[in-house]
Amino acid sequence: MAVSKKYIIGIDIGGSKIIAALVKGGKVFHKIKISMPKNKNEFFKKLETVIEQLIEKAGGMKNINGIGCGIGGALDLKKGIILSWSNIKFLDGFNIKNWLKKKFNCEVKINNDARCFTYGEYLYGAGRGYKNIVGMTLGTGVGGGIIINGQLIYGANGSAGEIGHMIIDNKKDLEFLTVKQIRKLKFSKIAAKKLEKNLGIGIANIINVLDPEAIIMGGGATKNAEAFIPKVKKIAGKFIVSSIAGENVKIIIGKLGENAGAIGAATLFYE
Amino acid sequence: MAVSKKYIIGIDIGGSKIIAALVKGGKVFHKIKISMPKNKNEFFKKLETVIEQLIEKAGGMKNINGIGCGIGGALDLKKGIILSWSNIKFLDGFNIKNWLKKKFNCEVKINNDARCFTYGEYLYGAGRGYKNIVGMTLGTGVGGGIIINGQLIYGANGSAGEIGHMIIDNKKDLEFLTVKQIRKLKFSKIAAKKLEKNLGIGIANIINVLDPEAIIMGGGATKNAEAFIPKVKKIAGKFIVSSIAGENVKIIIGKLGENAGAIGAATLFYE
Repeated sequence: MAVSKKYIIGIDIGGSKIIAALVKGGKVFHKIKISMPKNKNEFFKKLETVIEQLIEKAGGMKNINGIGCGIGGALDLKKGIILSWSNIKFLDGFNIKNWLKKKFNCEVKINNDARCFTYGEYLYGAGRGYKNIVGMTLGTGVGGGIIINGQLIYGANGSAGEIGHMIIDNKKDLEFLTVKQIRKLKFSKIAAKKLEKNLGIGIANIINVLDPEAIIMGGGATKNAEAFIPKVKKIAGKFIVSSIAGENVKIIIGKLGENAGAIGAATLFYE
Repeated sequence: MAVSKKYIIGIDIGGSKIIAALVKGGKVFHKIKISMPKNKNEFFKKLETVIEQLIEKAGGMKNINGIGCGIGGALDLKKGIILSWSNIKFLDGFNIKNWLKKKFNCEVKINNDARCFTYGEYLYGAGRGYKNIVGMTLGTGVGGGIIINGQLIYGANGSAGEIGHMIIDNKKDLEFLTVKQIRKLKFSKIAAKKLEKNLGIGIANIINVLDPEAIIMGGGATKNAEAFIPKVKKIAGKFIVSSIAGENVKIIIGKLGENAGAIGAATLFYE
């Protein structure tokens, strides 16, 4: 792990908001939160302003090591392009890595937002001390990040960890089934039961395939999900084939709160 | 990888048969195949005889490096115990590793049979040249092995790779849904359609979570499944979230045939 005394700007670009922060050693020194702009021009202008404000806070670019950026859409990690993002269509095809590099003349790293969350929690949050974890983000979608033997797993094409797209019930995936119930939670008791069942099965699938030490949950909808964890674990237990794995696995909430994504994006520099 | 000029005895203990072989450099020099004994006493006697015959063929224990053993049931890999095996109940709780060690006074390695298949195909079969593969065995059950960056993945409790136990349709897992259709294939056209659908969804789930370069299929029922691969891949494509991963992944049949398990068990010495 490279260690630097400088700050890293960590940016979490989500479906509904952007959180950008001045990060050092897993700690946030200054944070700016804005709602997600509605079009491309506004997005460029606001993102530039936010980053400039953070650079000023840091005392200039001489104190900035680089910019790490977590993004919700499907990415071409090598080229730095947002391939497609169902929530934010106006960024499709945009090379955010090159844009940031040219604007701020520094090293830029981009990654899937759920992978940023997972790596941030692994280094500085609820995942400390573990070597094999799966991060699961609940928000406008269900994302995932996988760490095996201390390494983030990318897969052959950079798309490993899409746990939200596991089909768990007759052609319907975990994301579709989960997000639907989260939206209904406030006014439906049946939604809670369905959420518990879907999360329980999804988590059992993860444990059967990967047998992690811990599953760490985060994302905007985690607060709603926290109360359900005991029941989710009980349901998962019915579908976990290894009784040892089922007993030992920890299902826990991330410790970095709403900053997890921005901290995680900054931790890309420690990978 | 340790390289030895001696033979390794590779044993594949499956639900219906035992294949034991004298293996060197991924090649089988002599092979003995027997049907799975019906009780514990017969199992001990026959396994001992088979191994003695292989030792004799090798020219004595001085030419044997050790015994590798792949087993279908749930294992305690550290202790060497068969924890439970739905197909072969009489071996539950049996410490096969210690038994073999004491009988033949040599190094013994045991592992899950699907993991053996995967590692054998990775080193000497259809997986050569890849670094990220998933092995999938179709037989009396559906097993799996995961290789990431050239390493077999065990998970926190030794139970990673149980892809057959992913829930894919309303509390029913891939193994249950697949094995049921394989049994009906000869006399039912609907069974073929259902098999294609279930395998397609199971494979899509694997690709969404792990994004491997290749999925290598093997096991006793693979011959039946081979003809379905084009359709299975087409169905999987509908559920794979990353179009690049879906286009690039190879879905192929193992090259080591019925020897894959025994060769794979021997390759445990090269891990």
